[in-house]
Amino acid sequence: MKLKLFLFLMLWGSLVQAQIQKTEPPFWWSGMNNPELQIMFYGKNIAQYDIVVDKSVTVTGIIKTENPNYVFVNLKTEGLPTGDYKIDFKRNGKIAFSHNYELKDRRENSALRKGFDASDVMYLIMPDRFANGDPGNDAHPSVTEKPNREYPGGRHGGDIQGIIDNLDYLNDLGVTAIWNTPMLEDNDPRYSYHTYAQSDVYRIDPRYGTNEDYKRLAAEMHKRDMKLVMDYVTNHWGAEHWMIKDLPAYDWINQFPGYENSNYRMTTQYDPNVAQRDLMYCVDGWFVKSMPDLNQRNPLVLNYLTQNAIWWIEYADLDGFRVDTYSYNDKEGIAKWTKSIMDEYPNFNIVGEVWMHDQAQISYWQKDSPIGAIQSFNSYLPSVMDFTLHNALMVIFDEELATWDKGMIKAYENFVNDFLYADIDNILVFAGNHDTGRINEIYDNDLNKYQLAITLVLTTRGIPQLYYGDEIGMRGEKDKGDGDIRRDFPGGWEGDTNNAFSSAGRDELQESYHSFTKTLLNYRKNKEVLHFGKLLQYLPEDNVYVYFRYNDKDRVMVVLNNNPEAQELDLRRYAEGLNGFKGGKEILSNRQIDLKSTLKIEGKSPMVIELN
Amino acid sequence: MKLKLFLFLMLWGSLVQAQIQKTEPPFWWSGMNNPELQIMFYGKNIAQYDIVVDKSVTVTGIIKTENPNYVFVNLKTEGLPTGDYKIDFKRNGKIAFSHNYELKDRRENSALRKGFDASDVMYLIMPDRFANGDPGNDAHPSVTEKPNREYPGGRHGGDIQGIIDNLDYLNDLGVTAIWNTPMLEDNDPRYSYHTYAQSDVYRIDPRYGTNEDYKRLAAEMHKRDMKLVMDYVTNHWGAEHWMIKDLPAYDWINQFPGYENSNYRMTTQYDPNVAQRDLMYCVDGWFVKSMPDLNQRNPLVLNYLTQNAIWWIEYADLDGFRVDTYSYNDKEGIAKWTKSIMDEYPNFNIVGEVWMHDQAQISYWQKDSPIGAIQSFNSYLPSVMDFTLHNALMVIFDEELATWDKGMIKAYENFVNDFLYADIDNILVFAGNHDTGRINEIYDNDLNKYQLAITLVLTTRGIPQLYYGDEIGMRGEKDKGDGDIRRDFPGGWEGDTNNAFSSAGRDELQESYHSFTKTLLNYRKNKEVLHFGKLLQYLPEDNVYVYFRYNDKDRVMVVLNNNPEAQELDLRRYAEGLNGFKGGKEILSNRQIDLKSTLKIEGKSPMVIELN
Repeated sequence: MKLKLFLFLMLWGSLVQAQIQKTEPPFWWSGMNNPELQIMFYGKNIAQYDIVVDKSVTVTGIIKTENPNYVFVNLKTEGLPTGDYKIDFKRNGKIAFSHNYELKDRRENSALRKGFDASDVMYLIMPDRFANGDPGNDAHPSVTEKPNREYPGGRHGGDIQGIIDNLDYLNDLGVTAIWNTPMLEDNDPRYSYHTYAQSDVYRIDPRYGTNEDYKRLAAEMHKRDMKLVMDYVTNHWGAEHWMIKDLPAYDWINQFPGYENSNYRMTTQYDPNVAQRDLMYCVDGWFVKSMPDLNQRNPLVLNYLTQNAIWWIEYADLDGFRVDTYSYNDKEGIAKWTKSIMDEYPNFNIVGEVWMHDQAQISYWQKDSPIGAIQSFNSYLPSVMDFTLHNALMVIFDEELATWDKGMIKAYENFVNDFLYADIDNILVFAGNHDTGRINEIYDNDLNKYQLAITLVLTTRGIPQLYYGDEIGMRGEKDKGDGDIRRDFPGGWEGDTNNAFSSAGRDELQESYHSFTKTLLNYRKNKEVLHFGKLLQYLPEDNVYVYFRYNDKDRVMVVLNNNPEAQELDLRRYAEGLNGFKGGKEILSNRQIDLKSTLKIEGKSPMVIELN
Repeated sequence: MKLKLFLFLMLWGSLVQAQIQKTEPPFWWSGMNNPELQIMFYGKNIAQYDIVVDKSVTVTGIIKTENPNYVFVNLKTEGLPTGDYKIDFKRNGKIAFSHNYELKDRRENSALRKGFDASDVMYLIMPDRFANGDPGNDAHPSVTEKPNREYPGGRHGGDIQGIIDNLDYLNDLGVTAIWNTPMLEDNDPRYSYHTYAQSDVYRIDPRYGTNEDYKRLAAEMHKRDMKLVMDYVTNHWGAEHWMIKDLPAYDWINQFPGYENSNYRMTTQYDPNVAQRDLMYCVDGWFVKSMPDLNQRNPLVLNYLTQNAIWWIEYADLDGFRVDTYSYNDKEGIAKWTKSIMDEYPNFNIVGEVWMHDQAQISYWQKDSPIGAIQSFNSYLPSVMDFTLHNALMVIFDEELATWDKGMIKAYENFVNDFLYADIDNILVFAGNHDTGRINEIYDNDLNKYQLAITLVLTTRGIPQLYYGDEIGMRGEKDKGDGDIRRDFPGGWEGDTNNAFSSAGRDELQESYHSFTKTLLNYRKNKEVLHFGKLLQYLPEDNVYVYFRYNDKDRVMVVLNNNPEAQELDLRRYAEGLNGFKGGKEILSNRQIDLKSTLKIEGKSPMVIELN
């Protein structure tokens, strides 16, 4: 190409760019189940142009808002082959500028992708705090906050490359899925490391890497038969989001006018006696001042969020979403969002953060919930979180004197209400996450208590979730601030003296946690009975909790002795669970056990026995 | 009549008596909705006779069990006029003896009797501890335990006459219904005063009076437009019950063989993961060793209990049942029992003791429960008890520092789950009963705290229930034993120095409790909006809880300030509840209040404002 022509094209291009600053979604795919596509164009006074789309495309609407810098073009993609489609922006009948919109080919079987499920073990990572695979991207000119590893609330430099570098570690540990807290651009000047205040939801934050890096992470995981779960935020964006700074519409966000804080009382979402004002403050109030609350009642907002979510699934080849603050959203809006995604990917999985302390209230938010049905509500959300079990797990192993309502009974009682859930296998089970005290802090690095907790998490019904570092005994106190429960994984930074990613680098304490976790995770990995087997539980006696998982093929007996003293169980009581078996292999100690009449179990310890 | 003939008849009669020791039900009624009647005859070897019933009666079955002393005759009463029907007991074709079975006339509108509901205030009485109207019946030759008023676990002498004597006191207080703990014969040698271990369920315990006295109690109450609620026990009888001593069948009661105690874990009734053994120990285990557990799976037992219950409704003219230990019964059996009664009396009411700590679990037991429906279970029980509110009431008024989950928020949170109930107006609301610590002990006779508690009980949705003596500040500590929470009502015994039944007799403390209670009860009495009005509640702020009851006609604002300091409320927040009203009459102080902009409320106090 001649230099002159090149320069001319560059110039022409930049003129066009000046008119269209953003096109979102930046591209789409041919052959989607939902043929509707809404393209948003953003540019100075762009609404003044007449828009003419390639004549092979059916345009169903052109939507303008009170802000002339936005225009939304609704079209049908049904039957359209892949390729570029020209969109002309005209004034006075003349083309002022054009845009070629691309429809791409989908991956094979993209629509039928299988989401994470109870056969998985999910590992929750805060990317900024896991491993710094590329120190070169710790700062980036396009975003404000610079790294400061000394500050618990600062950016520490962890990134996508750090996760990729340690996939083999996780695979070896027995993890099969990763949920990472958000990685889309968060340009807040402070605390951007948690990345829940996003400023551009079509862009991976450059301090984590590029969109292509994120796609590569998914590909590397799939190579290892692992699944990638994105943390999606529908409820709010950051105050630095470019659209917040130039709102498409006053009601794009919830305004009172302006900011009022949420009252955080999610029960207003179903209280039949609720005062509308309290409900409004829950749903429309902002989670924090720096996170303007999105108005999912506005169809443009809802559609924007829906397409963005689908775009990431399709673009990065995702295996699931975790949705932040799910129950703070407008109820009908978030249900539509969820349904749209599940209609597009019927085998996908989405787990919502529904942080309640009552099983009926948690169940309410799950797809086809009998509780939601009381109010004719269906969220279409396949998976919810077992926060009531989490509550129990944080205290029971310190309750050594069992009473009517203390000790192992609290675990047992969590499961008596399983019938309230529409799909009890699709419930996330966890001993902690990035918002709670760390399990090994709560139990003061008592390995026995960790073993009891994690054995319950890994062998009861549902999808187990670990929090990064649990497996090496990492501590962190919620009362000291969020930074403390989000410490750096040792070994993730060059120069770390302790490298817990390698067996050689782990100290004795770390190794003891790791080896126990690894044994159980790897046992669980291919043990279908622990994934989808039925649960049969026995009322705890003497603070010993016994339950069975069983299916047509296998049967596993789990014994959790929360009593400091060794206990001897009379096995006649467990006849229904034993189902005639007289022995089994204890997995944690790898020895054959006699189950003819009694079973002895050491104080404060678990047993996992595969009956044979 | 000649003497000889008389003596002959006497002798003949006694021979017959020797053959038939019991006929149960002793009589029945013509024109019942359910035409089936099962008469049980009890007598030495009575099963050896052939039974021939008056030919106008259709006999559908004669049932014998393994015990020859029982025979059950099934017949149809459809179309049978009132009168005596002869039943012959034959051997070798000859009549050995006969029995005239009577069908009586029913009261007018008996079938359509209206049970207690939210327009009532129910007053719970332990008859042995309320008032001794007839010292002549404190002991009786037919029952073992003699009076001992010095002993907290002994019989104190209270009786039916004592209740009748004080109906005017109760009526004046504003009470409209009485639930008395059981009064059927309990011949246990000790602790018979609570009368839950019944020994003859067709007989009022003679220490309370006679069957006729009980009928008279109902009549006296009806004269005063008050309702009588019987405490019915389906789960167990006392070990001294005459049928327990000569069991009709081995499986009349639940045997292991013999006695095993219940594990009291009622959650086994719906836990989908339950071990059958745990369920069996809950349902079939005995409540205590002295109370053999009835087997409601045996149709003879179930029918016996059903007919006995109906017999008492029809005989004594009852307005409701409270059913003891409802959720310890065989689930299907108790549902059939309940349905049979409600089919016979469609407007009747029955409240079951379902002592759980989770609203979904309580709701499970209510008729047409959406929670029960998950397991295709319908108890047909119209009313349940709000034990979760009770839990809150026992602690909140001591929680003066309101936090995320302490203080008035606990009351508010109880009502957010109202949607889990099938009929939220038919739920019993109470601050205490004969099995809990007394509210005025818990709050150490702090009148303000009582006022807050009782205002909530009397103005929220549901059927309020008081426990005798609450209205005069009576104390009693559960930890000191049941006797302490069941002290004698002062003034119920001749010679009592303190007589709280009369204004003159009450001391200052008693009078302050009484006058507050009376004011509120009498206000509630005819205030439909407090009976069936809708509830609208506001999230507590600064430990002040505000709610409204409203219907098309009226609107009442209730403010409970649990903060020790006076509070001033900005009324703009309550616009939805105020609905344009600018003033109202405060009921407790009987003064008109301005509601234009702010409302001041003293520390630790309630306000009940009828908007006008």
